[in-house]
Amino acid sequence: MKLNVREFSSSSEGFRDELDALLAWDSVSDAGVQHAVAGIVEQVRLKGDEAVIEFTNKFDRRQVVESSELEISRDELALAKERVSPELVDNLEAAAQRVNDYHERQKQSSWQYQEDSGTVLGQKVTPLDRVGVYVPGGKAAYPSSVLMNVMPAKVAGVKEIIMVVPTPDGVVNDIVLAAAYIAGVDRVFTIGGAQAVAALAYGTQSIPKVDKIVGPGNIFVATAKKMVFGVVGIDMIAGPSEILVVCDGKTDPDWIAMDLFSQAEHDEDAQSILVSPDLAFIKEVKSAMERLVDTQSRKDIIKVSLENRGALIHVKDMDDAMDIANIVAAEHLELSIDEPEKWVEKIRHAGAIFMGRHTPEAVGDYCAGPNHVLPTSGTARFSSPLGVYDFQKRSSLIYCSPEGASDLAKIAAPLARGESLEAHAMSAEYRILKDA
Amino acid sequence: MKLNVREFSSSSEGFRDELDALLAWDSVSDAGVQHAVAGIVEQVRLKGDEAVIEFTNKFDRRQVVESSELEISRDELALAKERVSPELVDNLEAAAQRVNDYHERQKQSSWQYQEDSGTVLGQKVTPLDRVGVYVPGGKAAYPSSVLMNVMPAKVAGVKEIIMVVPTPDGVVNDIVLAAAYIAGVDRVFTIGGAQAVAALAYGTQSIPKVDKIVGPGNIFVATAKKMVFGVVGIDMIAGPSEILVVCDGKTDPDWIAMDLFSQAEHDEDAQSILVSPDLAFIKEVKSAMERLVDTQSRKDIIKVSLENRGALIHVKDMDDAMDIANIVAAEHLELSIDEPEKWVEKIRHAGAIFMGRHTPEAVGDYCAGPNHVLPTSGTARFSSPLGVYDFQKRSSLIYCSPEGASDLAKIAAPLARGESLEAHAMSAEYRILKDA
Repeated sequence: MKLNVREFSSSSEGFRDELDALLAWDSVSDAGVQHAVAGIVEQVRLKGDEAVIEFTNKFDRRQVVESSELEISRDELALAKERVSPELVDNLEAAAQRVNDYHERQKQSSWQYQEDSGTVLGQKVTPLDRVGVYVPGGKAAYPSSVLMNVMPAKVAGVKEIIMVVPTPDGVVNDIVLAAAYIAGVDRVFTIGGAQAVAALAYGTQSIPKVDKIVGPGNIFVATAKKMVFGVVGIDMIAGPSEILVVCDGKTDPDWIAMDLFSQAEHDEDAQSILVSPDLAFIKEVKSAMERLVDTQSRKDIIKVSLENRGALIHVKDMDDAMDIANIVAAEHLELSIDEPEKWVEKIRHAGAIFMGRHTPEAVGDYCAGPNHVLPTSGTARFSSPLGVYDFQKRSSLIYCSPEGASDLAKIAAPLARGESLEAHAMSAEYRILKDA
Repeated sequence: MKLNVREFSSSSEGFRDELDALLAWDSVSDAGVQHAVAGIVEQVRLKGDEAVIEFTNKFDRRQVVESSELEISRDELALAKERVSPELVDNLEAAAQRVNDYHERQKQSSWQYQEDSGTVLGQKVTPLDRVGVYVPGGKAAYPSSVLMNVMPAKVAGVKEIIMVVPTPDGVVNDIVLAAAYIAGVDRVFTIGGAQAVAALAYGTQSIPKVDKIVGPGNIFVATAKKMVFGVVGIDMIAGPSEILVVCDGKTDPDWIAMDLFSQAEHDEDAQSILVSPDLAFIKEVKSAMERLVDTQSRKDIIKVSLENRGALIHVKDMDDAMDIANIVAAEHLELSIDEPEKWVEKIRHAGAIFMGRHTPEAVGDYCAGPNHVLPTSGTARFSSPLGVYDFQKRSSLIYCSPEGASDLAKIAAPLARGESLEAHAMSAEYRILKDA
């Protein structure tokens, strides 16, 4: 099948504008969505369970009468796991273990130090009390997302993890529930959309209020999360998924084609970009894609996303490729090149970096260990993969000895007066030692 | 002066509702503000400098013609520092040094580890490229905020720090500019409000686009920050400042009164709460407040904030006090008690914890070392003080050895098929070794 994928050269005039246009993604939800979501959030805030049941019955075509019908018990999760094939359960457990092991290394600890005056300064690190994990239901149900969102919270020591997952027409996904059981989710509610986000943010009679909401969702979920940000914490608002593959031309073109497909198959807005200094290789990858696309079960999605948002970029050399990688700040960056450990030094911005020819994004998506919840659309310039640090927080510790306080007060008081804050100055000065 | 400060007992029926009502703070900006800010942001995004100049002239009553008039050079910052008294400069420099020293301990480093298969997993930590710091101008100009927002970014290794500070009627604050010089700000623009936030988020012809915007501001600034969140990173949206003082009754009542005033004097919405198991002591503190309030230059503000949002809470014992502290999750928590190092173990949620009788919040506000930008309104339940970690980000590193890739692919491929992602499965399977 012929594929009309954009081809660029970084040497051509206007390349930077072309690149910017390629990367442009407007995540702003329109006024209609904003208005609808604001209404749902407000209703759930005011009416609690009653509104949650009403919206769930309406949007998920269910006939819920009592709020207790919305909860799936741990016992039911265990039964769902029994219904999944033992091989798949083994794979889920192996993945969970590896994700756990990697995330254990992200745990941060409290620290403190004492100054000569006896004053002690430090930072106390504590887990969040309760976290909500949003898991999409319906056609795009991803058990791997359950593991990736829940495991870091468990490693952080979060006491209670609440999962919400919509079950349109009452259909549950056993693999998703099995993953919830394996990951150690405490309670599961079969609700979704803006109503689920609002219920977690404000709490209802039966759904406990959480401290932070994480997990992917559609535009209604994303808009609701942004709306309740501040009332609770949220993770990043995710845009469409993207990969930037940098290849020196020495990897099997079929492998690279399939790596690009694995991103493109997510949805029509997904973005797959290949960057290479080898023009002949780019042509080979294109031929491979054209040959392989018809073998793909999701070929229609792959074709649309590659033609709409994909690109093959010919660069001058590997330095040029690294510059482009830093501009793109890709969610997934694959360095399918010689000596990736050398070139990775030049990368300043990326969500996850897949190094070498044997490291496809797909292993990172499921089981390598690092999180697959990554900053999209260039937000790797300022944000990080989901991690244990998202479920821990810090409190500053200050203990002043009488002598330390006296010294510090002499610095603080004039600065407070410089800001016309007299009570600040006096509060500090009360601690100045008379004989000091 | 008589002060009508609320008095509660934690033993009384309905206490929890009273406490919730006391703490309630609705930070939602109204539809009028939302609409105004959306218009300003859109204009700046579309028209750049032209719109920035127009809004600055309008809101700050200035007569700017060229965008170059909006910038203050490093040389001008140095001159401003010359105009500040040498003593105050010494105090600023001493504070900057202590803030620097504390924050150095927050720096995070990259790490990696190798598995038996030869596969390497890790996390690369990098600073943000460019950060914008918003500094309020006009009556509430705080040089200490310049230090607290800029120093962590410097310690993180941020390459370029852009400060914006409105100068209503063209009036500059020399101490603020001196602090900017000392902290190492790279460029300063005299703009403020939603237009400054939009300029930093999208960039204009003369103002560079940043990766993250931090710093306090009024409701227009806060609304604009929330609006551009996702385009750039932002710090938390700050509510009014608050302190919870827990005292066992053995600290000088005048000291505690002044510690409460130092919070109350910020603005009419600031919140000061005293918690003590000693009812007689609570009365003593109240008397001290009534005696001292008239000596205060900001007595009108102190009176309003204490009467509107202040409270004196009598508790059963110190355990009860700690429970309340965890419910409040205060921005500033002062433990003016014996053995604070023992009781602090029970604290799960607080922005900064001031331990012992000689540690007033005021020393933390200026020079103890920890940051004074702290989570307000109970958001310490899920967020942290501003820190070096806000200016660093992480990239996951995955390098699979051929053997490691082969093993991982056998886990990943079935999981991918379980999610109907065939290209993911095939991309992984290409890496399964034929003879393995």
